[in-house]
Amino acid sequence: MTTAHTSTTSDAGRADAKSDSKDFPHYLELRRLLRQAATLGSVGSALGWDQETFMPAGGGAHRADQLSTLAEMTHAKRTDPRIGELIHACESDKNLLADGARAANIREIRRDYARATKLPGELVAEIAKTTSLAQDAWKDARAKSDFAQFAPWLTKVLGLMRTKGTLYGVPASGELYDALLDEYEPSATAAQIEAIFTPLQARLTPLVAELTGAKHRPLDALKGIDVPQQQQHAFGLEVLKAIGFDLRRGRLDTTTHPFCTELGPDDTRLTTRYNTSSCLEPLSSTMHEAGHGMYEQGLPKGEHYGEPLGEAISLGIHESQSRLWENLVGRSRAFWAWGLPVAKGLYKGKLDHLNLEQVYGAVNVVERSFIRVESDEATYNLHIMLRFGLERALVGGELAIKDLPGEWNKRFKGLIGLDVPDDRRGCLQDVHWAFGLVGYFPTYTLGNLYAAQWWEKMHADMPELDAQMARGEFGKIRGWLNTNVHAHGRHYHAGELCERVTGKPLSAEPYMRTLEGKLRPLYKI
Amino acid sequence: MTTAHTSTTSDAGRADAKSDSKDFPHYLELRRLLRQAATLGSVGSALGWDQETFMPAGGGAHRADQLSTLAEMTHAKRTDPRIGELIHACESDKNLLADGARAANIREIRRDYARATKLPGELVAEIAKTTSLAQDAWKDARAKSDFAQFAPWLTKVLGLMRTKGTLYGVPASGELYDALLDEYEPSATAAQIEAIFTPLQARLTPLVAELTGAKHRPLDALKGIDVPQQQQHAFGLEVLKAIGFDLRRGRLDTTTHPFCTELGPDDTRLTTRYNTSSCLEPLSSTMHEAGHGMYEQGLPKGEHYGEPLGEAISLGIHESQSRLWENLVGRSRAFWAWGLPVAKGLYKGKLDHLNLEQVYGAVNVVERSFIRVESDEATYNLHIMLRFGLERALVGGELAIKDLPGEWNKRFKGLIGLDVPDDRRGCLQDVHWAFGLVGYFPTYTLGNLYAAQWWEKMHADMPELDAQMARGEFGKIRGWLNTNVHAHGRHYHAGELCERVTGKPLSAEPYMRTLEGKLRPLYKI
Repeated sequence: MTTAHTSTTSDAGRADAKSDSKDFPHYLELRRLLRQAATLGSVGSALGWDQETFMPAGGGAHRADQLSTLAEMTHAKRTDPRIGELIHACESDKNLLADGARAANIREIRRDYARATKLPGELVAEIAKTTSLAQDAWKDARAKSDFAQFAPWLTKVLGLMRTKGTLYGVPASGELYDALLDEYEPSATAAQIEAIFTPLQARLTPLVAELTGAKHRPLDALKGIDVPQQQQHAFGLEVLKAIGFDLRRGRLDTTTHPFCTELGPDDTRLTTRYNTSSCLEPLSSTMHEAGHGMYEQGLPKGEHYGEPLGEAISLGIHESQSRLWENLVGRSRAFWAWGLPVAKGLYKGKLDHLNLEQVYGAVNVVERSFIRVESDEATYNLHIMLRFGLERALVGGELAIKDLPGEWNKRFKGLIGLDVPDDRRGCLQDVHWAFGLVGYFPTYTLGNLYAAQWWEKMHADMPELDAQMARGEFGKIRGWLNTNVHAHGRHYHAGELCERVTGKPLSAEPYMRTLEGKLRPLYKI
Repeated sequence: MTTAHTSTTSDAGRADAKSDSKDFPHYLELRRLLRQAATLGSVGSALGWDQETFMPAGGGAHRADQLSTLAEMTHAKRTDPRIGELIHACESDKNLLADGARAANIREIRRDYARATKLPGELVAEIAKTTSLAQDAWKDARAKSDFAQFAPWLTKVLGLMRTKGTLYGVPASGELYDALLDEYEPSATAAQIEAIFTPLQARLTPLVAELTGAKHRPLDALKGIDVPQQQQHAFGLEVLKAIGFDLRRGRLDTTTHPFCTELGPDDTRLTTRYNTSSCLEPLSSTMHEAGHGMYEQGLPKGEHYGEPLGEAISLGIHESQSRLWENLVGRSRAFWAWGLPVAKGLYKGKLDHLNLEQVYGAVNVVERSFIRVESDEATYNLHIMLRFGLERALVGGELAIKDLPGEWNKRFKGLIGLDVPDDRRGCLQDVHWAFGLVGYFPTYTLGNLYAAQWWEKMHADMPELDAQMARGEFGKIRGWLNTNVHAHGRHYHAGELCERVTGKPLSAEPYMRTLEGKLRPLYKI
């Protein structure tokens, strides 16, 4: 998960401060105000990071007050009428708009300002406070597997989200859900997502059946090998260094629910988790979050901090970065050709009996399971489809909160084929709804699709990538992403960037090709 | 060190919100505004804590921007003209002032407001930013023992402090230094402190000579015993639990320079440091900071967060808490009668050859040394006198910054009797001046004196304390401090509280009696 915000970007460097200052003082002032607002907003990220990592239990109530105060003050800065005046002045300046990057920046600043000014400061403060408290309530309810305890909080949060969506304005589609989705995946609609998900499900369901029923299934040869957390952490750090996450501008800690958050232009924090009896699994969390982190580190924030040109396009694009590193790199044979000897060295004999094929098979075991974040590449999207359908129904009012556990379990059986034993492994497993992240889930699957589309193009551009990975060289991959995705900030919308970079609109084809291309040979089906 | 702010307190519970709301709406509104300002201010503490503990190196520049933005916004809340109006309304309300606690609260709120409104917001922001950057510069300069590299930063910080002092207004004494000292030790003056320090030095100097020259000196029997950090940390946590620092409302981490900071009414963070070859020394840092932390946890913040009635009186009183736990408890025979078996259990055989007398001797070794925070109880105050004299001369303009290292070394030789080998072990050893903490040092020695005065009174009130400590029971000590010191917040000024509680004004007699009473028998002099 990333706590980063949405967005589209730039031909960085063009819109430099020097010429702005001389020719476009209104643009320069606008950028300065946005930078100030972002600086204050980043303080909230620092508090959120601390809440998840180190805050003592007693600190929760005051933390909610701090976050709420900050959210309201940041909102006031973001909705300062002076910003509105400056946007208007920029929009009226043809010389300014002649530059594509500046024009894109202004377009997106307008979008953000128009959205922000629809929300009263008190609502923003209330959302910050309620979701901070709801998070603690969720933790407790999940530990006890007690949905009834969490239900009143979910009711509050969902009520606030509906209010927010209504204030944003119900879009042309008529679906309130789309107003929320738009925050994470600008201009996407639930109907569009459904049009992608339905045929994808129709292809994944039989594939999962084939894979789980295959005669020759790879074994989880890593199961039961106990490796101390410290050694796993050391391996994680080696991987971060190799793939290029800059630890001078970031760090890695441990939490229950892994995440990535940006505390400033040169301060990106990752978290992961360890299970001593699952010695390579945490690696997927680490690489996943590092993918988010390298996007944040690759955005042109030196020049454009706080402006759309320095921000991520959308959560779908953000997730394409994490998924690419986690799955397309991290579950590849080439990666482990380099990684296994490194892990063997750090794990002090524990892996010495394993060869590359065994580990490659183990990290690609497909198995129906209850927990989304532990699920494999093939079943993962089914978990997302479940959540998308449920949250859409909750927002639309077709599903009552009290009926959520039952409906979750029923649909889970239909989609994944298992009986959910308790809510801890069912509808209480994710923190998102407690956080107020409604409309966020579908971006995970969009991320998988974008990732595969980048991956195919990247290999077409650089046929030698596999050989490089096998030598522990990942610089070309990061460089390709830097140039083709990161450097643009929010200059282009997600779909536009996809077409620009790959020459084709987003499609599930590359995803299915990549997935089947790997799993069919491995499962001999 | 504590980063907590100055202050005098209350008969807590009297001034409850219910009756305020009915009878004194202006008082209630005033309290609400102060609470909001404190909540925002506490965010700065969270950022400061993170900067010292976990922030990656690259985060420094943006952190300075965040702190500076927050400082200016917090200052604006604290100097809101509405607060001035409400104070005036309260000061005119005889019914309100009839209650002693409320009257004290208003008196101190007036003091804080009068001081805060003397400073422009830009200066507050500049100080926050400069001291945040100066801290990083100091770290670097200290590591390289390069005073020349730090000098420009010290010049900037000292310039800002002189500006601040001038804006506060040079007090009746005519010394600019007093305007700064007043922030940490309200209404104290340099002349008063000198009048305490001079005779104290006249007694300490010959005592140190006697102790260091004694025939029968206890040995540092702990020297060279290597204990892993993890085991030392475990022992530190056992001690925290025993003495009563509430870990549900706080935590303990590791930093280069130990400190205690308050992130909210139920979130007090301690840091300590470990040296594997000095297995009980970190304990003194841990107990020291826990003393600060228990003061913070013992203040009536539930009722009075953000108000003087919920704040510490002064840094001298704050330091009396840390010193009492560190030295009077932590270096006592009774404490180790309990602590040594606990340490033996956790240190897995490493201490098995030692008996109580050896350890009691070892934690009370008196030795001339360069580093203040590593110095013993007898020489410690000489280190403080050095800093007090130097910072007073710097502020007064009698000492130029370029001459600081030379002057430090010359005075150090005179006071402690050693030749300083480099600035790392000389004038670059402390972070205080980089932080802008000028006028802070003398409060350490005041703390030692107050601590001994509490200690004597506490023993007179409860003669069974030693026996309890030897059983690991510290609740009566903490309870006495809670009742006599913590519960009052800033109701009384420091000197007033001392007279009220001990029946006598502050004096060096209890300190010298306690110190000599312990060391003379141990050194057989």
